[in-house]
Amino acid sequence: MREYDCWFQKQDGEPCVKGGLPERILLAGGGEIFNNAVAEYSELLLRKWGVKTVKLNGFTGERCVVIGVLDEIRSKNLNFSLPASLPPEGFLIRSGDDGLLICGADERGALYGVYRFLALLASGAFSENFETTDSPRSKYRIINHWDEASGFIERGYAGRSLFFKDGEIKYDAARIKDYARLLASTGINIISINNVNVRGEAKRFITEEYLPGVAALSAIFRPFGVRLMLSINFAAPCVIGPLATADPLDEKVAAWWAERARVVYSCIPDLAGFLVKADSEGEPGPFQYGRTHADGANMLAAALKPYGGELIWRCFVYNNSQDWRNWKIDRARAACDVFLPLDGAFSDNVLLQIKYGPLDFQVLEPVTPLLGALKKTRRLIEFQITQEYTGQQIDLCFLPYMWEKVMNFDAAYAETGFKIKELAANGGFEGIEGFAAVANTGLDKNWTGHTLAQANLYGYGRIAWKPDLKALDIAEEWSRLTFGVKQPKTAETVSQILMRSYPAYEKYNAPFGICFMVTPSTHYGPNIEGYEYSKWGTYHRADLHAIGVDRTVRGSGYAALYAPKNAAVFSDPSLCPKEFLLFFHRLPYGRLLANGETLLQNIYDSHFEGVEEAQKMMEDWEALKEAVDGCVYESVLEKFKLQIKNAREWRDQINTYFFRKTGISDAKGRLIYP
Amino acid sequence: MREYDCWFQKQDGEPCVKGGLPERILLAGGGEIFNNAVAEYSELLLRKWGVKTVKLNGFTGERCVVIGVLDEIRSKNLNFSLPASLPPEGFLIRSGDDGLLICGADERGALYGVYRFLALLASGAFSENFETTDSPRSKYRIINHWDEASGFIERGYAGRSLFFKDGEIKYDAARIKDYARLLASTGINIISINNVNVRGEAKRFITEEYLPGVAALSAIFRPFGVRLMLSINFAAPCVIGPLATADPLDEKVAAWWAERARVVYSCIPDLAGFLVKADSEGEPGPFQYGRTHADGANMLAAALKPYGGELIWRCFVYNNSQDWRNWKIDRARAACDVFLPLDGAFSDNVLLQIKYGPLDFQVLEPVTPLLGALKKTRRLIEFQITQEYTGQQIDLCFLPYMWEKVMNFDAAYAETGFKIKELAANGGFEGIEGFAAVANTGLDKNWTGHTLAQANLYGYGRIAWKPDLKALDIAEEWSRLTFGVKQPKTAETVSQILMRSYPAYEKYNAPFGICFMVTPSTHYGPNIEGYEYSKWGTYHRADLHAIGVDRTVRGSGYAALYAPKNAAVFSDPSLCPKEFLLFFHRLPYGRLLANGETLLQNIYDSHFEGVEEAQKMMEDWEALKEAVDGCVYESVLEKFKLQIKNAREWRDQINTYFFRKTGISDAKGRLIYP
Repeated sequence: MREYDCWFQKQDGEPCVKGGLPERILLAGGGEIFNNAVAEYSELLLRKWGVKTVKLNGFTGERCVVIGVLDEIRSKNLNFSLPASLPPEGFLIRSGDDGLLICGADERGALYGVYRFLALLASGAFSENFETTDSPRSKYRIINHWDEASGFIERGYAGRSLFFKDGEIKYDAARIKDYARLLASTGINIISINNVNVRGEAKRFITEEYLPGVAALSAIFRPFGVRLMLSINFAAPCVIGPLATADPLDEKVAAWWAERARVVYSCIPDLAGFLVKADSEGEPGPFQYGRTHADGANMLAAALKPYGGELIWRCFVYNNSQDWRNWKIDRARAACDVFLPLDGAFSDNVLLQIKYGPLDFQVLEPVTPLLGALKKTRRLIEFQITQEYTGQQIDLCFLPYMWEKVMNFDAAYAETGFKIKELAANGGFEGIEGFAAVANTGLDKNWTGHTLAQANLYGYGRIAWKPDLKALDIAEEWSRLTFGVKQPKTAETVSQILMRSYPAYEKYNAPFGICFMVTPSTHYGPNIEGYEYSKWGTYHRADLHAIGVDRTVRGSGYAALYAPKNAAVFSDPSLCPKEFLLFFHRLPYGRLLANGETLLQNIYDSHFEGVEEAQKMMEDWEALKEAVDGCVYESVLEKFKLQIKNAREWRDQINTYFFRKTGISDAKGRLIYP
Repeated sequence: MREYDCWFQKQDGEPCVKGGLPERILLAGGGEIFNNAVAEYSELLLRKWGVKTVKLNGFTGERCVVIGVLDEIRSKNLNFSLPASLPPEGFLIRSGDDGLLICGADERGALYGVYRFLALLASGAFSENFETTDSPRSKYRIINHWDEASGFIERGYAGRSLFFKDGEIKYDAARIKDYARLLASTGINIISINNVNVRGEAKRFITEEYLPGVAALSAIFRPFGVRLMLSINFAAPCVIGPLATADPLDEKVAAWWAERARVVYSCIPDLAGFLVKADSEGEPGPFQYGRTHADGANMLAAALKPYGGELIWRCFVYNNSQDWRNWKIDRARAACDVFLPLDGAFSDNVLLQIKYGPLDFQVLEPVTPLLGALKKTRRLIEFQITQEYTGQQIDLCFLPYMWEKVMNFDAAYAETGFKIKELAANGGFEGIEGFAAVANTGLDKNWTGHTLAQANLYGYGRIAWKPDLKALDIAEEWSRLTFGVKQPKTAETVSQILMRSYPAYEKYNAPFGICFMVTPSTHYGPNIEGYEYSKWGTYHRADLHAIGVDRTVRGSGYAALYAPKNAAVFSDPSLCPKEFLLFFHRLPYGRLLANGETLLQNIYDSHFEGVEEAQKMMEDWEALKEAVDGCVYESVLEKFKLQIKNAREWRDQINTYFFRKTGISDAKGRLIYP
């Protein structure tokens, strides 16, 4: 494999399609995205199999592939049985006696159909008399870049920004096109290009000075069905000027934003909208003016409304000047406390973007109750593809494993119960309309720092498209596309390594959902008390007897924010899922868990196991030495070596920390450093 | 007072000299420094009392002050009884029937005499029939700037660099002259202008590109008797080029440095020499080439020798990639382990610069045995005026209080015993030839961030001049010069606040000499386990039973590096001074100390007291509201408020930490947060 090509590798084998690759294309459609779908088909057939394509002017009776949109195909009266309709952005792929058909519901559907068809071919999943229809369950499949105008990427572990350099919009257009392909091929349809912490020159991206650059970038993404979005600074009317206030209820402020929106949309008519982080970790927001977040969001939404733009408002709002002495405040409650009372108060082009967990992309966090408890508010679920707390693209950590769990969480907010994946497939006021996730990509040759972390980018797009996809299916899909099918053992091994990576990381990380035992500010590696006396609301409060935060009604009451069934489960330590035990409860080290061992012994065990499992992953990788491209093999091996060092550090610091706290040795006699 | 003027305030009272201020000056000397002494006399008389001076061409019989150097005065046959000689840089001040005399042993002596005379006048310590002689006990009274070419100052808390900006040598010449006055008036005679971590453009300060700028700066300091020194990068032959090695035993390297020294001294003939931090915290050094530190230092010293330059070599060398799991390694031993075997191996123009403690400028550290144990090596003792670990010029911490203790430490290396202050006054191969200290000054209007931290700059010069000065005397001197004598209560209160500040800081900081319970990298505020699992060799190893590092022969053996008498005291916890108890010993929390309380209760007590004492200092300051200039009053009050916040944070984090470790409450029932 070539690390740059991700899941578009040159194929060394025969494509599994009877009669050979469909070189002749009959078109039934038009428009920028449709034309690009056809161009992509041609380019990828050439690149992957070295086959040149020919466009037919009309049906000649020869074997060909028909690429089109449903209405156009129908109007051509070809010899295909066609469905009455297809869902938006959906497609039908069919290979049968009547020929080969890639039929989109619309232009995007055709593009997605082309990618799916090629993926099926490449992964050996296509066959004669094959038919599949598919469509995205959610309308919004968004990727958020935390890129800064300087080129630095906040929480980026794959080099500098693809878009920016030294305060300017500067990029390699060919590479951006390749990036647009990667995103579109997994179904992503919106990209916010700049960090939600809008600093430096990025504050002026919505001005005439930068808009031509943004527009030029959007022109590269547009044929791939990917619309741009901009993160804006709530204080822009003051920062850019000339206003002295950003008060959302001030008419001058509303007028300022209306004029800004007019200018922005005159340059980029299909801009998806604005993304806002307000009143969070030092960012400005409506609280400064004594206004609610609905006041702030609705004012901005009104400015975007005439142009069809959406206002996406993040719910990552909490007190970040907390006093560790105060056991009453609980950061986990914050988003609910701020946003639940506002349910129904947001305009119809506002979407709340809600992190899947109540804290901050931790390794083990329960799904936030806010996702299910809001009923009259449009919302998105937010993931983080970049591995801030999950190994920083040094440690392997296949995130779809965890995302699948989030999708299977039963929000239970209605009598019947709904899993997040069902909410996400539902849309509208009763559901979650889509997904957003922080990108893990940058200028590194392999895009993602760790080559195997490409699977997280791929997996995010796939989950956003189809929330009930299994992590294992994603791992297998990605591994086959990336490592080929000629030596099936390779993809199989890689896929198994991926599936074991998240549980291994969990095992050597902070135990039982306790969170934030990481090195302050870098967030890589252990620092058990690093956030213990901080202002960030990130405490485990371990003493010689017990550890954990009581979030039941006897404590902060966070657990009671869940629907009754979940609240009951989380509130009872004997029912609470083990991985969230210390998230919800303060427990003595000697408490016996379901496996008959004490809490402490479980901590020791999981940390010894975590290192062993990291070592096993590396060994399995080493067995692929002959099967994998040398550069990729070595770079991944190098990462595994660093991961094992990190895992050892976690194991030893965690075990020593608890040994020093309790004086209790490992029951199995393994070495714990004193 | 005006904060900029430091200890050269405009005087509102009458000077205490009978017959009024001596306006007429009879000169008996010459040379750049001497002429500046006279100019300083005139300028300061004008500035402080508004009095203009007149230079006499010859003795007229009128009341005048004679300013001169001993030999010249003698040759003028004036009516003075003169001593046969004065020690180098010394002076005689006399007021008697035969008139007023400021007689220097040499030009510097005359300058120091002028400053002393004016200080005596201003502080009300002068009188009729007064005579004093004084001279510095040490030849080297050095201040080290950790300023970088960018203008950033490593561990600087008083603004950006006085000397550098944006990679260039850039300064306000008038301000540099004022700075030279401040330094010279306390007796400082050498200044190294750039950081010992020689980064960026500073690596090239020894090249033709920067030397004219260095020379221009040295020309401002020269009339004040202050010689410049440069910190150099050991790898300069490679960094500047063209060599591929910096191996000190490579002839090409020696020749490279010889040529560099020639060029440098052609620009600055009186340069004091080079200062080197080698093989320390990432800096290059002789270890890279398998050479000793004597090899490295002697090679450089040989290059400086023809020009009379000194090579100052820092002993801050230790393993900074230590494994916290390993209880055998002890960073406190490092400097001794590296340098004791080299005693006698250094050339005669090499001076070792040795931090007073074995670790790194901690609040409570025993004096390093290295200072006394070396017998055949010239050496300097290193202090830190900038308050890296002692409150960063937010918290008030009067350092001479601690320096006095260091001076009174009995090195006991000979049968008779020697205190450090006696060694320092002794010079030569049996003693310490001088002092170096890291500056606390920068571009802040008040020079030192905290206005009262000016006392530390003043105090350093005074201790370096006279190692047996008492901290209280320094505090009183400085307070009178700074706050005047008209309302004696003001200076008295300030001086008492100063004297109480170090003990207060000790009390709320890490207990009993345990060290490094600070926030990693910033080094401000508590982080009890912040350095506990680090690579820096900075561990306290607290568990549920005990805390501390055993540095006796049962442990790392560090205590045995002291002379027998000290080794015996430090090795026995019942004899060991309380402030170093946990530096030398690992002790259970329940151990009874001399006051009948447990170790733990002593920790609680001192932390409650520390906050109370900080509060009392602020109250005492508040009582001076009417007596002190408004700006100074407010800025110092602001600092006290921050200090109290910091002290509370220390108290609560330390107390909670140990309460969580032991489960034992305060015996006096005070609140410890759980």
